Amino acid sequence: MSTFKERLAGAVERHESLVCVGLDPVPERLPAGISRDAEGIAKFNHRLIEATADIACCFKPNFPFYGALGAPGFEALKKTIDAVPDDVPVLLDCKVGDIGSTADRWAHMVFVELGADAVVVNPYMGTDALTPFLEYEDRGVFVLCHTSNPGAAEFQRLSLDGAPLFEHVVRKTLEWDETHNNCGIVVGATQAGSMARLRRLAPDLPFLVPGVGSQGGDLQGAVSDGLRADGAGLLINASRSIIFASDGADFPEAARQAAETLRQQINSVRKGRSIAQSG
Amino acid sequence: MSTFKERLAGAVERHESLVCVGLDPVPERLPAGISRDAEGIAKFNHRLIEATADIACCFKPNFPFYGALGAPGFEALKKTIDAVPDDVPVLLDCKVGDIGSTADRWAHMVFVELGADAVVVNPYMGTDALTPFLEYEDRGVFVLCHTSNPGAAEFQRLSLDGAPLFEHVVRKTLEWDETHNNCGIVVGATQAGSMARLRRLAPDLPFLVPGVGSQGGDLQGAVSDGLRADGAGLLINASRSIIFASDGADFPEAARQAAETLRQQINSVRKGRSIAQSG
Repeated sequence: MSTFKERLAGAVERHESLVCVGLDPVPERLPAGISRDAEGIAKFNHRLIEATADIACCFKPNFPFYGALGAPGFEALKKTIDAVPDDVPVLLDCKVGDIGSTADRWAHMVFVELGADAVVVNPYMGTDALTPFLEYEDRGVFVLCHTSNPGAAEFQRLSLDGAPLFEHVVRKTLEWDETHNNCGIVVGATQAGSMARLRRLAPDLPFLVPGVGSQGGDLQGAVSDGLRADGAGLLINASRSIIFASDGADFPEAARQAAETLRQQINSVRKGRSIAQSG
Repeated sequence: MSTFKERLAGAVERHESLVCVGLDPVPERLPAGISRDAEGIAKFNHRLIEATADIACCFKPNFPFYGALGAPGFEALKKTIDAVPDDVPVLLDCKVGDIGSTADRWAHMVFVELGADAVVVNPYMGTDALTPFLEYEDRGVFVLCHTSNPGAAEFQRLSLDGAPLFEHVVRKTLEWDETHNNCGIVVGATQAGSMARLRRLAPDLPFLVPGVGSQGGDLQGAVSDGLRADGAGLLINASRSIIFASDGADFPEAARQAAETLRQQINSVRKGRSIAQSG
């Protein structure tokens, strides 16, 4: 079986896209005509996926948006993941990590029960809390590094030997990637200062970049600073700005338009940089 | 409604117990005669709860042991939480945290959909990633601080701006508790060096202490160093050593015996300390 990095690279190339569509639906924001429950969410997602699958490089459902609806929500998540075409990877966001025997159950839930291609994990508990995920070597493991929210300042930027905690995390992630070749990191688009520095530290890792949509991060700066030498290496995530682009019956078209606009904005930065490099 | 701390104190006093029973079942270890699926897990837990509810101060199911079984696992978790008598609190372990709108969904899942009394969260993303949990002021929020696993050395003990990361976490938790009066911390029983120091830093917080059972932590040292001045303030968690105490049909009696032995071991340290203090 191919690796996650290969499947992601395939989708990036075929769709000329670094757009990751975040599937974080809440019942009260579903458009009129769709039932405001777990079944409605599965339908809503299905139509969003049909409308955007050829312009996304990845879909990223976030677990608690489904778990909050109980067992039917879990089923809706499973249907959602099944609805994504095989050539576009699914990254399940849950930001977990635990001692080995428990992490083993999380990994089973994410990779076997739900069939996701990749996961977002939290590094706080260290290597043995992530090993059960890393050992699925055909799947991807994105490690929280420097996140997009205000609270990122509180622990992630505490300093040791001149380096913030999040740099210690990226160094450790590079070790894990050396062994398993399936790691990425999470770097918020709102973290203007650190994107370029993290790319220098980790020239090859894929970066999952939240924070460009509703959270207001600087898209152009994040893409320009974060691109890998090959012009890829980023998953620019937008959730609410795509999936709730319209609250009417035209929501699939509106979502497609929002995703397409984001794709073009990103690609114009990519193109600019490749011209600058060849010039 | 009473606070989590009040409900916990009530169970501790009535049952003269600091024993937290971890409900982390896996289908392949269920005793003969119980089906090895989600339904079997709900039955297994029900009998464990009946057998131990009067000697536990808390029950702690760990989410992925249920999530790994899909939607039926989610139902089994709900049934398990419902089966716990009202006078014993339920702490749902999931070790999560995320930006506000997502953490809001986690908190809804844990406190509303599943009806747990308390949760375990991960501090890496900072205050705003935990606020949606903290705002349920009648529920408890246990923050990972110094965990019981080997990987705890990698980030938690890094000396950042002059103190190990886990001490920054406990100081922040004290601020959150100041505002919301519903916090605790997680301190592994295997972390001999830090238990006493953390108790000095946080004289009043409840500590959830994993690592005394199958993980081999020093029970006597952990209790002696971690007890609060009032002789309580600890939830000593044991999972596998209680729930899998027998793999035969006598598993409820064996679990009860294991929990009772742990209760007595803990209480002899509590008694020893109260004699030492009054002598």
